[in-house]
Amino acid sequence: MAPSTPRVVVGIDVKKRPWEQLVPLHNRWHPDIPPVADVKEGELVRVEMVDWTGGRVGDNNSAEDIKSLDLTITHYLTGPLRVLDTDGKPAQPGDLLAVEICNLGPLPGDEWGYTGTFDRENGGGFLTDHFPCATKAIWYFEGIYAYSPNIPGVRFPGLTHPGIIGTAPSHDLLNIWNERERKLAETDTGFLKLCEVVHQRPLASLPTPKNCLLGKIKEGSPEWQKMANEAARTIPGRENGGNCDIKNLSRGSKVYLPVFVEGANLSTGDMHFSQGDGEVSFCGAIEMSGFLELKCEIIRGGMKEYLTPMGPTPLHVNPIFEIGPVEPRFSEWLVFEGISVDEAGQQHYLDATVAYKRAVLNAIDYLSSFGYSKEQSYILLSCCPCEGRISGIVDSPNAVATLAIPTAIFDQLSCIIYASIIVYFIQCQKVISVCIFSILFCCLFIFHKLGHKA
Amino acid sequence: MAPSTPRVVVGIDVKKRPWEQLVPLHNRWHPDIPPVADVKEGELVRVEMVDWTGGRVGDNNSAEDIKSLDLTITHYLTGPLRVLDTDGKPAQPGDLLAVEICNLGPLPGDEWGYTGTFDRENGGGFLTDHFPCATKAIWYFEGIYAYSPNIPGVRFPGLTHPGIIGTAPSHDLLNIWNERERKLAETDTGFLKLCEVVHQRPLASLPTPKNCLLGKIKEGSPEWQKMANEAARTIPGRENGGNCDIKNLSRGSKVYLPVFVEGANLSTGDMHFSQGDGEVSFCGAIEMSGFLELKCEIIRGGMKEYLTPMGPTPLHVNPIFEIGPVEPRFSEWLVFEGISVDEAGQQHYLDATVAYKRAVLNAIDYLSSFGYSKEQSYILLSCCPCEGRISGIVDSPNAVATLAIPTAIFDQLSCIIYASIIVYFIQCQKVISVCIFSILFCCLFIFHKLGHKA
Amino acid sequence: MAPSTPRVVVGIDVKKRPWEQLVPLHNRWHPDIPPVADVKEGELVRVEMVDWTGGRVGDNNSAEDIKSLDLTITHYLTGPLRVLDTDGKPAQPGDLLAVEICNLGPLPGDEWGYTGTFDRENGGGFLTDHFPCATKAIWYFEGIYAYSPNIPGVRFPGLTHPGIIGTAPSHDLLNIWNERERKLAETDTGFLKLCEVVHQRPLASLPTPKNCLLGKIKEGSPEWQKMANEAARTIPGRENGGNCDIKNLSRGSKVYLPVFVEGANLSTGDMHFSQGDGEVSFCGAIEMSGFLELKCEIIRGGMKEYLTPMGPTPLHVNPIFEIGPVEPRFSEWLVFEGISVDEAGQQHYLDATVAYKRAVLNAIDYLSSFGYSKEQSYILLSCCPCEGRISGIVDSPNAVATLAIPTAIFDQLSCIIYASIIVYFIQCQKVISVCIFSILFCCLFIFHKLGHKA
Amino acid sequence: MAPSTPRVVVGIDVKKRPWEQLVPLHNRWHPDIPPVADVKEGELVRVEMVDWTGGRVGDNNSAEDIKSLDLTITHYLTGPLRVLDTDGKPAQPGDLLAVEICNLGPLPGDEWGYTGTFDRENGGGFLTDHFPCATKAIWYFEGIYAYSPNIPGVRFPGLTHPGIIGTAPSHDLLNIWNERERKLAETDTGFLKLCEVVHQRPLASLPTPKNCLLGKIKEGSPEWQKMANEAARTIPGRENGGNCDIKNLSRGSKVYLPVFVEGANLSTGDMHFSQGDGEVSFCGAIEMSGFLELKCEIIRGGMKEYLTPMGPTPLHVNPIFEIGPVEPRFSEWLVFEGISVDEAGQQHYLDATVAYKRAVLNAIDYLSSFGYSKEQSYILLSCCPCEGRISGIVDSPNAVATLAIPTAIFDQLSCIIYASIIVYFIQCQKVISVCIFSILFCCLFIFHKLGHKA
Repeated sequence: MAPSTPRVVVGIDVKKRPWEQLVPLHNRWHPDIPPVADVKEGELVRVEMVDWTGGRVGDNNSAEDIKSLDLTITHYLTGPLRVLDTDGKPAQPGDLLAVEICNLGPLPGDEWGYTGTFDRENGGGFLTDHFPCATKAIWYFEGIYAYSPNIPGVRFPGLTHPGIIGTAPSHDLLNIWNERERKLAETDTGFLKLCEVVHQRPLASLPTPKNCLLGKIKEGSPEWQKMANEAARTIPGRENGGNCDIKNLSRGSKVYLPVFVEGANLSTGDMHFSQGDGEVSFCGAIEMSGFLELKCEIIRGGMKEYLTPMGPTPLHVNPIFEIGPVEPRFSEWLVFEGISVDEAGQQHYLDATVAYKRAVLNAIDYLSSFGYSKEQSYILLSCCPCEGRISGIVDSPNAVATLAIPTAIFDQLSCIIYASIIVYFIQCQKVISVCIFSILFCCLFIFHKLGHKA
Repeated sequence: MAPSTPRVVVGIDVKKRPWEQLVPLHNRWHPDIPPVADVKEGELVRVEMVDWTGGRVGDNNSAEDIKSLDLTITHYLTGPLRVLDTDGKPAQPGDLLAVEICNLGPLPGDEWGYTGTFDRENGGGFLTDHFPCATKAIWYFEGIYAYSPNIPGVRFPGLTHPGIIGTAPSHDLLNIWNERERKLAETDTGFLKLCEVVHQRPLASLPTPKNCLLGKIKEGSPEWQKMANEAARTIPGRENGGNCDIKNLSRGSKVYLPVFVEGANLSTGDMHFSQGDGEVSFCGAIEMSGFLELKCEIIRGGMKEYLTPMGPTPLHVNPIFEIGPVEPRFSEWLVFEGISVDEAGQQHYLDATVAYKRAVLNAIDYLSSFGYSKEQSYILLSCCPCEGRISGIVDSPNAVATLAIPTAIFDQLSCIIYASIIVYFIQCQKVISVCIFSILFCCLFIFHKLGHKA
Repeated sequence: MAPSTPRVVVGIDVKKRPWEQLVPLHNRWHPDIPPVADVKEGELVRVEMVDWTGGRVGDNNSAEDIKSLDLTITHYLTGPLRVLDTDGKPAQPGDLLAVEICNLGPLPGDEWGYTGTFDRENGGGFLTDHFPCATKAIWYFEGIYAYSPNIPGVRFPGLTHPGIIGTAPSHDLLNIWNERERKLAETDTGFLKLCEVVHQRPLASLPTPKNCLLGKIKEGSPEWQKMANEAARTIPGRENGGNCDIKNLSRGSKVYLPVFVEGANLSTGDMHFSQGDGEVSFCGAIEMSGFLELKCEIIRGGMKEYLTPMGPTPLHVNPIFEIGPVEPRFSEWLVFEGISVDEAGQQHYLDATVAYKRAVLNAIDYLSSFGYSKEQSYILLSCCPCEGRISGIVDSPNAVATLAIPTAIFDQLSCIIYASIIVYFIQCQKVISVCIFSILFCCLFIFHKLGHKA
Repeated sequence: MAPSTPRVVVGIDVKKRPWEQLVPLHNRWHPDIPPVADVKEGELVRVEMVDWTGGRVGDNNSAEDIKSLDLTITHYLTGPLRVLDTDGKPAQPGDLLAVEICNLGPLPGDEWGYTGTFDRENGGGFLTDHFPCATKAIWYFEGIYAYSPNIPGVRFPGLTHPGIIGTAPSHDLLNIWNERERKLAETDTGFLKLCEVVHQRPLASLPTPKNCLLGKIKEGSPEWQKMANEAARTIPGRENGGNCDIKNLSRGSKVYLPVFVEGANLSTGDMHFSQGDGEVSFCGAIEMSGFLELKCEIIRGGMKEYLTPMGPTPLHVNPIFEIGPVEPRFSEWLVFEGISVDEAGQQHYLDATVAYKRAVLNAIDYLSSFGYSKEQSYILLSCCPCEGRISGIVDSPNAVATLAIPTAIFDQLSCIIYASIIVYFIQCQKVISVCIFSILFCCLFIFHKLGHKA
């Protein structure tokens, strides 16, 4: 019968640098980056990818590499793949490309990852005004689980997903992107409402030839020169999918991407072992190298039929996706709420970003009262499978956002052991309050009654 | 042994108007509204409540009542309840009040509800610039399920919850609310970033004596005069909980509310048979009268110990809650994405509200292509158990928000019957495309392949 | 618009005895028990029911009532309901009756239940050779939760369901039942394989006029005399559904029952607040009075079309059902295994009953090592939402059965408080082993590592 | 930092025969089979395994290989692994060995499997009196999903698990096994109750030197001669775990195995991509080669502390396990019931095996009415993630067992396409009943209403 092993379309050698890989990578979006391979509709193929920085961040306890990371290098993507139907006819602009994520995971032999926060002056993050310095946590994987020597007492199953998956933009779409983002960047005068409370900079990352990698296009060639000056950066998610950072895009899920160029030119990268909704610390997932086994399908004319443009042109569309059936099950959640009043006490109008910021801050503070540093909590909430919800968006002036943390990520055993040890020593010293503290540490979500009894 | 039947603390007669109820209701937040009953820590009590409008909206097919609804009447709340510990000592400011939601549901004999969208000139809603007119859908309940004669082919189990649950503010907190909201309302000059795309008005609902109901405080009395001019409106969620509209606050969940006045003075109301994250159409849940069986617990000093102020005063806190174990299980979700680029194509900076708006618009459009009117879809996404997520909030300039719809809410049977009927007629007329259309109607989330084969 | 409140078809007054109820009850299966009401297809109706013993078991700490209970009185059922289609034509033999369970719960004002084990000489139970004496536990309900003063440290949400739901048998089917069960009862000579390890008696409960209640048929009348001598007892589940004790037949589920007599004559009773798979202690669910809101549908000719007789006549069929969407979610399970080797070490051949018995015994023993008595554990595993699985049934000679306990039923808080208190006292007395014991008590499922460290 | 890649302890070359593998395999349980490797507590190790037949079954459409399979060759196991603590001290008899299943799956390059039914004269299966002939279905894997060219319209995510995982028995335990099974085999006279309805043969598979493989023990040596005559066959699960065929023993689960010999001597094999509860067709899982990444922990003295002997010696214990957090989520289940009345209409006493048999037969019949052959259905229910429950085991004389099928395993799309095609042709020919049939095919679980309308 037919072979069922996935065909390896792009392999990666993690010991090599991004520009040394056998199949060339790219770190920009551009219609003219040549495909590196053809894949047929229905065919199960495997692609491998470096981590988003291409190996710049090390398996060590120093955050220096995060601090000095030049964001113009990111994200290194695998692809583009040219998608053909079973008759060999490539996908056409206007089609919809359905990509099923059949399997994915870390690269064998490279089972580790990291989470970081960027310096305020080097990109920052959602809470950079509270956490201005670069930090880093290393994560190791044991099959489905991740644990970190830097954040003890935590272990959770990964909801692994590619942070980036997208099709190549057309020239028209690329122009739209560049124009609207340039316009925003030019308004950076501090009066923007959100910027009063979210200090990330720059407002938008515009095209730059610096560190630009364009696959088979030779660096320095006239073609490269032209393309590098207009190729879109990979930081934001856009109409083509891209860096959507949707944590549920995991095993068994399916994404329907619009096709803007012949062949679709699918690229993917930025593999995350796990991520929380929002990926709040920016380098906030558990970043790693990885593999992705996928199957493509072309829906002829599907872009028009299923995606309604929500903007001035037919290109202003967004992908659709379906969630897979094997997500980790959690049954107990501790939920933090935020409203659109900022830390200065100022009222904002139905601003879900401000509300979510406050919910995250509330959660960080809560966790830190049980022995974690705020930096540990910030990183943890960025990469663990927590859920960020827009709960109410109509009760003016307050948007209500919530952050739900599955309590099962905390290793209750080590907490209890820790607590009982503390209790032992404490009793001898009659420092009852510390005792209570340590027991609280072991049962985060049931804290209240203990407090009550104390 | 001990009796276990919940004690009915506040009963409601839905045939009477809000101000005629035996136990008086209130529709403002104020520290001086007198408690209507005492409840003891650990005691299982039952409170009943009118729907948020106190019966102004009828079980009929006209949206006139929604259109002309005066928002100063809302929300009619049941309470306040004064909470005592087992020794009879009331909750104190600085305590935390844990409220377990043991059971809740529609009032026997009144098993119906409604969902509406408000006129743009009368409050509007999240998408009021797209849907400026008042609409209404009626829902009937069959045990755990709701269905609507106005939106055929849909039936789903309710994730029933109180839209409003909160403690009374202190005078200090009330002042903070009034001041910051007045300040916002005064800025209503159109330059606010979010208001370019979210047209709800007014920006904030300030105190007004009009239709003000203050429980046992006699209307027109000097005390009432004073209080009515400063009592906070119930529209937004705030530090005291209030109109948080968190759809998961259902059976078995627990909310930890800060205590600002002696006795905590807990009030609740605005019962929802079901609601989607965001409650996007404003009158967006399935609104109904209902009962709530709850149990209180006082955590002495818990406010300081577990809630960190995130603002200039110790009062700037938010409640915490835990989700209950009996939510409906859905395994298949269809997910729509939005980014912070508005319908005019303008780029906004990490604006989750804009991103979520676009995700909702994408979903409405998608559903409407299968036979629902956009108004039906808007109402449906407002009240069905869909999930609104902040997926990415750091990849500047685009926030990525997602809206996930459980496909099980669609009655696949009626779709299939409908499809097969259409197929029958269509075959006779050789209009194959319509046939395909109708089959698509019946299998929303697997649409693409059919399109592909056509 | 149309009213949606369920019509109360049979009400119950729990202060009255079964034979004093306004609408008469019955405790046997017989085709000639007259219907007490008509219900229409599609109509939402409400029926109420006494507990299975009709109030013989009291809310107190004595098991005397269980010990002396005469099993000929059970189970008191509500009905029969005659089901008509929308044209008024009754269901016919050969049809299928689909019953949707829209809502159900305890009767307001009677929110308590009990679980018991029967005396070996009075019916016994699955483990009666290990637990020969009558015991009882009382349960109180707080909304969705049950807790027992007799089994501290346990609280769980109920998966409430009717233990009995069934249609009336035809005369032919009744004859089949009586004949095959009489045949079995006559073989009671001790040589039966299962009886070596399952000592319940009698092997089958045959018809008896003693305590026979036949609804509207007047006791002592000639008709009653005839019927009472042939009416089937309600103990076992049979072709008509009946006492199937399927714990997942809860809110939103649907059962498809074969119709054997005109009108279907649907009866229901034996409401369970909660039950574990197997209901091992016989009076093993949390037994209570209750209400059931249901909707019927007639599938004409469906019995033949969807149920295949698996026996010598077309009447040898079994119902089908669908599980509802709102079961409690549990994410952590502790699983005990049993194989078909009995306590004497004897090998049985693929005997799932023996294997399950051993799995249950293993679980009881495990729990009892943490402070519960074996009697408490037996009752708990009988009524908590544990799952009993036939894991392997082909690897001769051993069937493998498993019993999975959701760890969330244990109130971790009270365990931790308890543990810390013990720790405190123990430290003073240097009795470290007791300390370890008590911590183990609080974290059943993570026991091993602590043991390891000790 | 420390490396996190799992150490490959035993590799497999699927192109080689079991006895040609670099690290020798074994297919019997015996205390004296020498360990092939040492593993340390806490260390993440990877072992690979052949399929249970060691490659005797081919990726083709003939069931000849199943028909002629000699069961004395099975099951080929990987191991034994000798487990040491961090100080290098091996596990001791009386300890408990906790094995965490961190990851597992098919071997790269060998992503396929098979399910079969055995000939009645060659082992048979649970329903061999209904299905006496050998059959086979091939399955291909696409990441988490399996599909079969032999059973169209079905695709489901695998709940992958090792069918066999166990420790070596001591000599004493081995003697107990051999004695009790020999005793049973000798009773094979047809009078055994279960054997009236379950015809599998032999009743027990006793030790035999035929095809016996004992790892490093050289075949034909005196040592081999002795051991081969007493080494236990691997067919049944026993006190050491072994062939427990528990389908939930998947990613993230943990099994606690008793230790009977120094070093524990852990072996594993018989990898299943997926299996239904009961594995009813005997070769009933999706059988494959595979890898398993695991972590061991030794709980000193844990056997005595946590496992209670349920039999005449301290060796009569059973393993305990915990279920992992990433099982596939299914929300809709179609449930079939069986009672302990056999196909001849005879009443059996609380016999869960008979009840489950009838539930499975009911399900097979139901599925076959929608176009599947009974053989296809039998195989499908054996390997898909269906749940087999002991629902009621006390209501004498009837045990009630249920079989729950997740409806999501049926590919609704292909069903709908199929249905619409049929509809098209049928309309032309006015054969409406066939049309109805085909639509039914596409919506198994909602069949009834359509039937009703027809």
